[in-house]
Amino acid sequence: MRPVVVAGAGMIPFERRDEDTLVDMMAVASLKAMDDAGLGDRAVDAVYVGNMASGLFNHQVSVASALVDRLSLMPAAADRIENGPASGGSAMKNGFLAVASGYADVVLVVGGEKMREVIGPKATDIVAAMTHPQAEYIYGVTLPALAGLFTRLYMEKYGVTREHLTMVAIKNQENGLLNPYAHIRMKITMEGVLKHPQAHINSPVVADPLHLYDCCPVSDGSAAVLLTTEEIAKDLKKPIVTIDGVGQATDTHTVHERSDPTELKAVIESSKKAFSMANAKPKDVDVAELHDAFTVLEIAESEQAGFFPLGEGAKALERGDTRIGGKLPINPSGGLKARGHPVGATGVAQIVELTWQLRGEAGERQVKKAKTGFSLNFGGFGNNVLAFVMRRKS
Amino acid sequence: MRPVVVAGAGMIPFERRDEDTLVDMMAVASLKAMDDAGLGDRAVDAVYVGNMASGLFNHQVSVASALVDRLSLMPAAADRIENGPASGGSAMKNGFLAVASGYADVVLVVGGEKMREVIGPKATDIVAAMTHPQAEYIYGVTLPALAGLFTRLYMEKYGVTREHLTMVAIKNQENGLLNPYAHIRMKITMEGVLKHPQAHINSPVVADPLHLYDCCPVSDGSAAVLLTTEEIAKDLKKPIVTIDGVGQATDTHTVHERSDPTELKAVIESSKKAFSMANAKPKDVDVAELHDAFTVLEIAESEQAGFFPLGEGAKALERGDTRIGGKLPINPSGGLKARGHPVGATGVAQIVELTWQLRGEAGERQVKKAKTGFSLNFGGFGNNVLAFVMRRKS
Repeated sequence: MRPVVVAGAGMIPFERRDEDTLVDMMAVASLKAMDDAGLGDRAVDAVYVGNMASGLFNHQVSVASALVDRLSLMPAAADRIENGPASGGSAMKNGFLAVASGYADVVLVVGGEKMREVIGPKATDIVAAMTHPQAEYIYGVTLPALAGLFTRLYMEKYGVTREHLTMVAIKNQENGLLNPYAHIRMKITMEGVLKHPQAHINSPVVADPLHLYDCCPVSDGSAAVLLTTEEIAKDLKKPIVTIDGVGQATDTHTVHERSDPTELKAVIESSKKAFSMANAKPKDVDVAELHDAFTVLEIAESEQAGFFPLGEGAKALERGDTRIGGKLPINPSGGLKARGHPVGATGVAQIVELTWQLRGEAGERQVKKAKTGFSLNFGGFGNNVLAFVMRRKS
Repeated sequence: MRPVVVAGAGMIPFERRDEDTLVDMMAVASLKAMDDAGLGDRAVDAVYVGNMASGLFNHQVSVASALVDRLSLMPAAADRIENGPASGGSAMKNGFLAVASGYADVVLVVGGEKMREVIGPKATDIVAAMTHPQAEYIYGVTLPALAGLFTRLYMEKYGVTREHLTMVAIKNQENGLLNPYAHIRMKITMEGVLKHPQAHINSPVVADPLHLYDCCPVSDGSAAVLLTTEEIAKDLKKPIVTIDGVGQATDTHTVHERSDPTELKAVIESSKKAFSMANAKPKDVDVAELHDAFTVLEIAESEQAGFFPLGEGAKALERGDTRIGGKLPINPSGGLKARGHPVGATGVAQIVELTWQLRGEAGERQVKKAKTGFSLNFGGFGNNVLAFVMRRKS
C-alpha cells in the first residue's frame, strides 16, 4: 500500500444551521480542505461522503453525487459511506484505501449530517434506527438508554463516579471554549452540575445515571480532508501528516448479546489493528480524539484502546493526565461533548483536529510537540468501531 | 494493485418478499456466495453492503453492522455504501479496492433492498429522493419522469421507435423466463404490448412515451459475491474469474444542466476507464449486463459504453445481435426489466450473473464461450455510473 497523506483539512462550525442544506455544509467544508491543501486546479479523482441518515433527516439520498456536482468535480467518482455514528470513520477508511491501492491519487473525504431539520424527539428516533429492529428498537431502546445501562455497569465494576463523568464534561467544555468550531461553548463547574440547589434543573436526567451534561448535543455540521500521495503532497507545501494505521472491528449488533457488556471488543480490536499497522504503541501517542458521545465512553475508550489499564482511566482523568498539557491530552477539540456530533461528520472532524494538532495549527488548544495522533470513531453502541494512527513526518 | 477474483456468487430470487427483512435477504444471499466459494471456516476480513435507502424504506440504518452479526463474521469490518441505483456497483468498487490494496484478503460484497415494505407511490417518492431537492424533487420530478423526457429526446434524435423499446422488453422478458431468480417471468409480444385493442390497458402509460413494459418493477432482493486474492482463490477450486477493470464517473446532478441531455457522459467515461484499466476493448466483450431500468437505457448504454456507434443500438437490437446467441448478448439475466431492480442489489446481481456466465454456470441462458464480461450500473439519472470488465482466467 502507498503511504497516504492528509494534505488538506477544513470544517465549518458545528451548530444549529437552519440556513444551510446538508450539501451546502459539505461543499463549504470541502472547499476549505481543498484550499488548505493548496490544491489549485489539480483534479480530484474521488469523493467519499460519510453520512448516516440523509434519507431520514433530509429526505435525500445520493448526496455524494449532489456534492460532486456542487463542487464541479465531475467526472470524479463519488460514494456515500454509512456506518451509523462511525460513518465518517468508514468514509476515511475507504478514501484511504482508494489512495493506498493506487486507484486514485487525490481523494476528498467529507463527513456531514444535518440533524436539526427534524423536530424534537424525532432526531433521537432516527439515531435509534441503528439499533436492532426486532431485538432493541421495537422495545423503545435509544442510544442514550444503551449508554445509561453501560454507564451504570461501568461505574459499578470500575469505581467510576458521577464526579468522574462530570470531570470529562468539564474538561471537554473547557477545551471547546478554545475551539472556534465547537457547538457548545460554555464553562461548566462541578458545583453547578452536581451540587447546586438547581443541579437537577441545570443538568436533568437523560437516561439514569447520565445527565444532560453527560451527553453530546444534536448538531448540524461538516468536516473534510484531502488525501493524496506523498509525491503530490511534496508539491503542496504543507507539513506532511500521514495516516499510518487504520483499524476497524465489529462486535455483536446488540449490546445484550455480549458476555461482558462493559468490554468494548470492537474498540479493543480496531485499536490493536491500527497500532499494529502503524507499528506504534499507545505510549507513542501525543494527542487523542475519542468518541465521547457520552462522558463514560471517553473513560472506557481511554482504557480499552490501550492508553490506561482497565479501571485506571478515571484516575488518569482525576490527575489531569488527559487535559491539554497533561501526559495524554484527550479531545483537545472539545470532543463530541463540546464540538458537537453531527453524526456523519464526527469521524472526519477527528482527523481534521489531529491534522491541525500534528501540524501545530491548533491555536490556543495546541498540544505541544504533538507528533503522533490517535482517533477513535464509535459506531452503533460499540458494534462497529474505527481507529486511526497519524504521524507528522516533516 | 493485486488482482481480485470473484470466488463466490449467490443471490435470492427477486420478488415481493413480505416475509423477509432486509437483513434476512442479505444474510441468505451472503451464505450462498460463501458456500459457492467453498470458503469453509476461512475468515472474512470485510463486508461491504450496497443499499440505497434502508432508512426510508425500512427505518433502519447501520445494516452492514447488523449483517456482520447475523452472519457471525465479527470482528470483520463492515460498511454500507450508498450511491442511489448504483449502490451495488459502488459497494463492488470499494470491496475490490479493499482486496486490491492488500488491506483485506477475503471480502464479502452484498447488495440488497427491501422496497415493498412501503405502500404504493411511496416507493417512487423514496426513489425520487436521489434527485436534486431544490431543482428537481420540489417540482415533482420522479425517475420515470426523467426517463420519459430522455426517451422522447433519444427517439427524436436517433430514430428509436416504440417498437424498438418494446423489442428490449420482449428480449429481456424472454431471457428472464430462463432465469429462476427473475422477478417478472412472463412472455410478452409486440402484438400484445403495442397493437392489441387493449394494449393501452396491458401496458398503460407511465411517463410518456414510456409504458408499463418499458419500466423495471419495484422488487425486494439481494445478491452477493465473495472477493479474494488469486492465491486464496487457487485453493477454492472454482474457475478463476477476475475483475480486471473498474470505472466510475459522475455527471451533473440534474439532467437539465447537460448541454446535450441525450449524451450520458458518466456512461461514456466510466466505460472508458473500465476498459482502459482492463486493457480491453468493447469488441472483446462476450456478454454484457446493462442497466435497463427503462428500456431506452439499454439501447443508449449499448451505444455510449462503446459497443455500437450512436444511433446503431436499435439496429443491432433489430438484427438480434443482443439476444442470447447473438454477437453481443445483453442482459441474458433478463436485466432490471425482468430480473427486477431491488435498487442496492442490482450492481451486485450484475456481477453475479457475469460470474455465472464466465464460469459456464448460467444454465439455459448460458452465453457460449463467454470469456469476457461487462456490466454497467447507472446511478441517479446517469449522474454516477460504474462499469466493470471481468474475465475468465482458467
